[in-house]
Amino acid sequence: MMMYAASRRLCGGSAGSPLLGLRYMCLRSLSTSFREEKDTFGPILVPSDKLWGAQTQRSLQNFDIGGEREQMPEPIIRAFGILKKCAAKVNMEYGLDPSIGKAIMQAAQEVSEGKLNDHFPLVIWQTGSGTQSNMNANEVIANRAAEILGHQRGEKYVHPNDHVNRSQSSNDTFPTVMHIAAATEINSRLIPSLKHLETALHSKSIEFKDIIKIGRTHTQDATPLTLGQEFSGYYTQVKYGIDRVTCTLPRMYQLAQGGTAVGTGLNTKKGFDVKIARAVAEETNLPFVTAENKFEALAAHDAFVETSGAVNTVATSLMKIANDIRLLGSGPRCGLGELILPENEPGSSIMPGKVNPTQCEALTMVCAQVMGNHVAITVGGSNGHFELNVFKPLIASGLLRSIRLLGDASASFEKNCVRGIQANKERILKLLHESLMLVTSLNPKIGYDNAAAVAKKAHKEGSTLKEAALNLGVLTSEEFDQLVVPEKMIGPSD
Amino acid sequence: MMMYAASRRLCGGSAGSPLLGLRYMCLRSLSTSFREEKDTFGPILVPSDKLWGAQTQRSLQNFDIGGEREQMPEPIIRAFGILKKCAAKVNMEYGLDPSIGKAIMQAAQEVSEGKLNDHFPLVIWQTGSGTQSNMNANEVIANRAAEILGHQRGEKYVHPNDHVNRSQSSNDTFPTVMHIAAATEINSRLIPSLKHLETALHSKSIEFKDIIKIGRTHTQDATPLTLGQEFSGYYTQVKYGIDRVTCTLPRMYQLAQGGTAVGTGLNTKKGFDVKIARAVAEETNLPFVTAENKFEALAAHDAFVETSGAVNTVATSLMKIANDIRLLGSGPRCGLGELILPENEPGSSIMPGKVNPTQCEALTMVCAQVMGNHVAITVGGSNGHFELNVFKPLIASGLLRSIRLLGDASASFEKNCVRGIQANKERILKLLHESLMLVTSLNPKIGYDNAAAVAKKAHKEGSTLKEAALNLGVLTSEEFDQLVVPEKMIGPSD
Amino acid sequence: MMMYAASRRLCGGSAGSPLLGLRYMCLRSLSTSFREEKDTFGPILVPSDKLWGAQTQRSLQNFDIGGEREQMPEPIIRAFGILKKCAAKVNMEYGLDPSIGKAIMQAAQEVSEGKLNDHFPLVIWQTGSGTQSNMNANEVIANRAAEILGHQRGEKYVHPNDHVNRSQSSNDTFPTVMHIAAATEINSRLIPSLKHLETALHSKSIEFKDIIKIGRTHTQDATPLTLGQEFSGYYTQVKYGIDRVTCTLPRMYQLAQGGTAVGTGLNTKKGFDVKIARAVAEETNLPFVTAENKFEALAAHDAFVETSGAVNTVATSLMKIANDIRLLGSGPRCGLGELILPENEPGSSIMPGKVNPTQCEALTMVCAQVMGNHVAITVGGSNGHFELNVFKPLIASGLLRSIRLLGDASASFEKNCVRGIQANKERILKLLHESLMLVTSLNPKIGYDNAAAVAKKAHKEGSTLKEAALNLGVLTSEEFDQLVVPEKMIGPSD
Amino acid sequence: MMMYAASRRLCGGSAGSPLLGLRYMCLRSLSTSFREEKDTFGPILVPSDKLWGAQTQRSLQNFDIGGEREQMPEPIIRAFGILKKCAAKVNMEYGLDPSIGKAIMQAAQEVSEGKLNDHFPLVIWQTGSGTQSNMNANEVIANRAAEILGHQRGEKYVHPNDHVNRSQSSNDTFPTVMHIAAATEINSRLIPSLKHLETALHSKSIEFKDIIKIGRTHTQDATPLTLGQEFSGYYTQVKYGIDRVTCTLPRMYQLAQGGTAVGTGLNTKKGFDVKIARAVAEETNLPFVTAENKFEALAAHDAFVETSGAVNTVATSLMKIANDIRLLGSGPRCGLGELILPENEPGSSIMPGKVNPTQCEALTMVCAQVMGNHVAITVGGSNGHFELNVFKPLIASGLLRSIRLLGDASASFEKNCVRGIQANKERILKLLHESLMLVTSLNPKIGYDNAAAVAKKAHKEGSTLKEAALNLGVLTSEEFDQLVVPEKMIGPSD
Repeated sequence: MMMYAASRRLCGGSAGSPLLGLRYMCLRSLSTSFREEKDTFGPILVPSDKLWGAQTQRSLQNFDIGGEREQMPEPIIRAFGILKKCAAKVNMEYGLDPSIGKAIMQAAQEVSEGKLNDHFPLVIWQTGSGTQSNMNANEVIANRAAEILGHQRGEKYVHPNDHVNRSQSSNDTFPTVMHIAAATEINSRLIPSLKHLETALHSKSIEFKDIIKIGRTHTQDATPLTLGQEFSGYYTQVKYGIDRVTCTLPRMYQLAQGGTAVGTGLNTKKGFDVKIARAVAEETNLPFVTAENKFEALAAHDAFVETSGAVNTVATSLMKIANDIRLLGSGPRCGLGELILPENEPGSSIMPGKVNPTQCEALTMVCAQVMGNHVAITVGGSNGHFELNVFKPLIASGLLRSIRLLGDASASFEKNCVRGIQANKERILKLLHESLMLVTSLNPKIGYDNAAAVAKKAHKEGSTLKEAALNLGVLTSEEFDQLVVPEKMIGPSD
Repeated sequence: MMMYAASRRLCGGSAGSPLLGLRYMCLRSLSTSFREEKDTFGPILVPSDKLWGAQTQRSLQNFDIGGEREQMPEPIIRAFGILKKCAAKVNMEYGLDPSIGKAIMQAAQEVSEGKLNDHFPLVIWQTGSGTQSNMNANEVIANRAAEILGHQRGEKYVHPNDHVNRSQSSNDTFPTVMHIAAATEINSRLIPSLKHLETALHSKSIEFKDIIKIGRTHTQDATPLTLGQEFSGYYTQVKYGIDRVTCTLPRMYQLAQGGTAVGTGLNTKKGFDVKIARAVAEETNLPFVTAENKFEALAAHDAFVETSGAVNTVATSLMKIANDIRLLGSGPRCGLGELILPENEPGSSIMPGKVNPTQCEALTMVCAQVMGNHVAITVGGSNGHFELNVFKPLIASGLLRSIRLLGDASASFEKNCVRGIQANKERILKLLHESLMLVTSLNPKIGYDNAAAVAKKAHKEGSTLKEAALNLGVLTSEEFDQLVVPEKMIGPSD
Repeated sequence: MMMYAASRRLCGGSAGSPLLGLRYMCLRSLSTSFREEKDTFGPILVPSDKLWGAQTQRSLQNFDIGGEREQMPEPIIRAFGILKKCAAKVNMEYGLDPSIGKAIMQAAQEVSEGKLNDHFPLVIWQTGSGTQSNMNANEVIANRAAEILGHQRGEKYVHPNDHVNRSQSSNDTFPTVMHIAAATEINSRLIPSLKHLETALHSKSIEFKDIIKIGRTHTQDATPLTLGQEFSGYYTQVKYGIDRVTCTLPRMYQLAQGGTAVGTGLNTKKGFDVKIARAVAEETNLPFVTAENKFEALAAHDAFVETSGAVNTVATSLMKIANDIRLLGSGPRCGLGELILPENEPGSSIMPGKVNPTQCEALTMVCAQVMGNHVAITVGGSNGHFELNVFKPLIASGLLRSIRLLGDASASFEKNCVRGIQANKERILKLLHESLMLVTSLNPKIGYDNAAAVAKKAHKEGSTLKEAALNLGVLTSEEFDQLVVPEKMIGPSD
Repeated sequence: MMMYAASRRLCGGSAGSPLLGLRYMCLRSLSTSFREEKDTFGPILVPSDKLWGAQTQRSLQNFDIGGEREQMPEPIIRAFGILKKCAAKVNMEYGLDPSIGKAIMQAAQEVSEGKLNDHFPLVIWQTGSGTQSNMNANEVIANRAAEILGHQRGEKYVHPNDHVNRSQSSNDTFPTVMHIAAATEINSRLIPSLKHLETALHSKSIEFKDIIKIGRTHTQDATPLTLGQEFSGYYTQVKYGIDRVTCTLPRMYQLAQGGTAVGTGLNTKKGFDVKIARAVAEETNLPFVTAENKFEALAAHDAFVETSGAVNTVATSLMKIANDIRLLGSGPRCGLGELILPENEPGSSIMPGKVNPTQCEALTMVCAQVMGNHVAITVGGSNGHFELNVFKPLIASGLLRSIRLLGDASASFEKNCVRGIQANKERILKLLHESLMLVTSLNPKIGYDNAAAVAKKAHKEGSTLKEAALNLGVLTSEEFDQLVVPEKMIGPSD
């Protein structure tokens, strides 16, 4: 793939190039050999060492958008492997020649394991139904299955449409692989990472349960709480985030397969939809079922918009947590300085000795990207027409990217930051006792207005609360000492 | 209120006015009378006919942003009434003077019924904790309760902080009223409207179940389905939308009340949080509970971001449905013309006789606004600092606006459009039989490649599929007639 | 209007109400009297005291969405007044009866001055072309003009379509009033407020020019700068923001008027478009011109999307500035505490004496809303079909709200916050001298690696930089004193 | 790089892997050899065949987020080459050893040409200042320059910080390369592609200038226009889009270089900033200048938010155009069918002979992604703190992706779709003459109300307009024929 891509670049296949023919010749001269593949548009040359066929090749030439980095995400490719394997299995029950069926299953298995990734060159920015990627899968699997059976690539002994795509349409396979890929990535990547993060934050919450510190509201000094309580808010956010994503899964587990072209199931046999969903469920160990309404399943991707909304909420939570942690860890001498964050690398190319909250930065950047992807997915989701939403690759790639980035960044944040956070106890104690907001515990005794007068006086004169209170004569020294006790301010009273 | 607002405008209280004093004098001269109210900042004049106090007046003067249209949404005001009533009730269990408690309950009841709306002049764009609206509620209720007890406004016989706000902080009351308001509006406005819409779409799906029509994918002709099937996709979207919103409610039913200033519950008694949640649940008949973690409940509004995400998904669905309906109803002579939409008003100021899909337009505009509000809420939700998110009024007003607009627009769409949709059967039949995509039913018999040749030939020559098929010699006339039957193409085969 | 709206509410005109007839009767019984108005759909009752006609009344009944707060923004109404006045003036040149023309001009003038606001009850969420608001303007002006000429309301002596709307279509008038309203609001509200803010920040920058303080990057201590330099970044952001918005105005000054129904100008006379743009320019003192391509001007609102993008950038800037100011002002004792912000009101209902950066909060909430509106506008702008974008009221109201809120909030922020900011010099000085990042000035002398060792040692041991440097033997005491001079660190060296 | 990446995957370097040490060993065993590199954190092993140093290696290990697809975009890498070359050149004027300076220039030139791309493995999701990518550039160039001078990698004969990064900080270099990369990509990729598209649409507008067709507003039949006029709206949108993006460039041409750590220019010599901007301008042939305020240039990326806003507007325009084209080309038999789009590939895996508007689909998906990226950039842009915005890599990669995708997709759309669009004249003529909206030309003669009656009658009875008009007796046959002439309806009258 690298070589091929290189050839594409060298040969001027950039945007605006008017010379498709020239690029084509160029391809011929660079690669050692080509073979001819055919589709209903006629013959076309394909690199001999590639398993793909005519339709993939056409897409490659017609959609020169974004280059390699914009290729269809790997989880989609792997999900195609899973789906095509299951389809062959079920199709055999409905009469597909078993020798062909088994070869398809074997080839599809290789796709599902990522072994044939180099044969999936297409970018996200193709037809909005993902038809070309479906055909890419059909072509690769057909050629590979043919090889397994001792036939040549391109001779269609195993036919991409009639055999591999049997009982299927791009319009139901692509939504199906979208759901398989997203559900798999959520279960295997996002949720485990979030659970680790929740656990780490929970541990910190326990570790810090006795450290009383100043609270801050409006970024201003407020009444105290424990550092453990503060972290309990964080892990609750993450815990709820897991719940939120999980709540959306029932709709993600619904598969469109069996709807074929427009949702009616034309060219399938009764029961095909249920059987294939069951097969996918077995293959993936996830509770996939057939979609209760196939028209909705093709024409809309509300399930993706919904899940993206939950993931967007998680991003919101993590943005808040990471922001707090970096601000609480700000300093070392001129910031809040209550937390000591792990030092992982030099922080500056000019300021020696600087250490930065880089994990917070990576995570918050990821959160911003997730918010952006969510808008892209929403726009795509709202733009379906009639029987088919044709923003599928956009929607799929957007959510998969959000899941991957948020999962990886959470894991990195947990491992390289949260786990190693230490409390700067000395600093925390110092700030706590300087605070004026301890005055709040005087309210029930002397009333809000008097308490305010005490705080204002102390603030104005730079004095302690006690000095101000005694000065104003609203309390005795003993009363003050009895009431203003941070340890008593961190929960309701009896 | 109108008069007061007018005075504000006349007196140059517009943005940039440097003359607060002048405006103040101006106020004095226009209104017949003022009384003095006080807070910890000192005395301030308040219109005599208003129940609010000093802090409300200050906010009114300090936040001259957006004018009357930007006032805090009414559901928030009403929810304050509910909450303050419940707080007084519970506070009496903890020692609040019953005569004062009962007067507060009565005054709060009036607020909850919208009777004192004119005494809530503050805009959304105030302090980010909603403190000023909480104080507005405290002041209005205190003055009203005092009156009930035969005392004067402004003399604080009933104290806004010590009595009405007892055991509370803005930091827990405002999140609490946010949740009460949103949950109430969802249950009383959004979900009922969506259910009506689901029912109407479902009825149409049944009404249209025998009308076979051309399907469209990629906006291009595709295999047939029934108009009822098409509408089944729509009602499924709405049905799932209701599920989606409902799924988020468990977190919306969690109340922050009892967390007070920073989540610790300082200045409350043990059990206060549980009791007040129970009181609110009784008052509203909704299953509110106390939030399991008060730190999260003050510092983040993930529950709002999450629900807004679900509402955003509903907007996505309705955008798709309304778009389809207007396109299927396009014409009357030069569009698709399959649906006949109700004619509600003249459509054009220049083109006589024009009738437009105006309900679709209002609904899709609302959907776009909901998507925008969702981004605003997400940005606000991600920007909490430490113990308090201070984008509360933004977040609250955004979701409440989305709920209101989507509920009302769904109701309007159902009543003024969906209910009256008729199928243009003649047109539908004509289009169906002209379509080339009926060729798909030949695949199992003659293979994809041959079927494609038939369709291409018919397209090129402007002939019927049958003519093309016979011409190519791939089928007999009888075979064709047996295979190409739209009625057999709308489901899987046996 | 208030009474009428009240009747609407009392009569159950809420979402989902199935009883339009009942509401109608209800209207009749509440208002003292009604008159009959007619349009091409037939007769309909209208409140006698209102100037509007049949089409307005229908819209009121067909679009019960959102209530009064969702009425078409006032600047749109006023712009209709301006446009209709100009249209009558130009139409007289093309043969409109002068007595009718003059009466229209007089009535339109009243609309432009806001005198007839109560006669514009329609909400944003109506037909997407704004036709109903155009008809509202036509009807009100026609009835008012008829009255001026001694005729009765409803008898159409002055005809809403044939006279007031002469040579016009909603499809060109609504885009025209959108542009008039937005350009006017930008010039009269947004830009003046931003200029005041720029000036205030610039003044602070000069006032603070000699206060050297610690810099912060990654929220961590960095090399020093002056507080004046820090504020110079802020005013530069605002200054560029003004440039950004101004840059988009040339496209905002293009008027669609003269395009009529689809952009061709059917039913206008040659030259009408140029003349009317000139008339509007004279009326408003803004450099409006006729749009160079009317098809674009009706079918797209890219000019609004573009301007909203500039306004969104301003929101981004102000979010940053307000965030910085609240964090620099955090404290009073446990935050950064470098700035002292004006105290405008009590900050807490529970914590006595608390003062919060409330103006920063209002402004940042507004910024979030502007970001959300921008997405709504973008979605609306992308959804035009064929000759007409029908998300016009959404787009118009979104941008107008952003302009209003950002203008007002900037003015409030300037007046109630920026103007009164003081530097906490003592605190600033203390933090500056504790910082380790002064070490950076050693780089050129001892190299990055050695300098890093000094900083790390000081950090680890809690010592001063000088102690660490001497201890490591990389510098003499004299050298250190000569190099580490904050005053020399705030600019390039000679 | 492939091999190295593979090793990373095989060794379990996935998210959540707790065994950094193990992965490290794993690296050792897979690669044939490693060398030791050092930074202020100590020694670390680096693959021998790579030019990067210790800090790059640390980032690679600490930010395992997203995998290879998430690497820093190539235009950033190349821009680093340009900048570092210019920096060495200017530094030589200020005393950098010329032999080292020249070697740096040579090495940097290789980076700018993309020759060393494999040595830039870092992902976007790293520190938010891009420090690690700046160090990656410094390390690669230092090692390469050392090699050029006959020294070993890792021995720091050329020092990454003291030589390559001399007079620079990540905080000014990264913003500088952001601006270089974006300005270059806009000028070399986006604007040329948009110009081609504008030209192609303009040509079509001329080609179609005499084809009169039905107009459509609200998706409903409206008055006629020419197909050329319709396309003139499209090219005007694209033309203005180019203006919009170009308008933002003055701020994009401002370079932060010379601001160093916090904007003050510490550790640079006077004049450095101006000289380096001039050097970059010469190197790139673009009018770069030094930023007028370096504090703004480091702490905010408003220029990116602004340009992204303009690019977002272009996306809005292209979404509209592509949507129109696909709907006008819908069919072949059951859609609007006015346009015939080029057939580039088979459209369906199940429906033989289907051809889809795939280029419109790819383009509209790209537009949705651009809208999403814009939100991500806005969120990132609003989140700067103090002297540094640390969402730089997010912001940079987002805009670069938008530019690349929109440029490529516009080029693809122009080449594979617009250029080949044909008008279906027969169909267009047929629809035109069936339309009822020709009635509009009767308004000036018989008034709006009568004209409406004619249209309604024709619609109801399925008759022609003429039949209805004669029947109603409002016109003679001759009058009708004289007035209702589509050719006279496509512009203003004399």
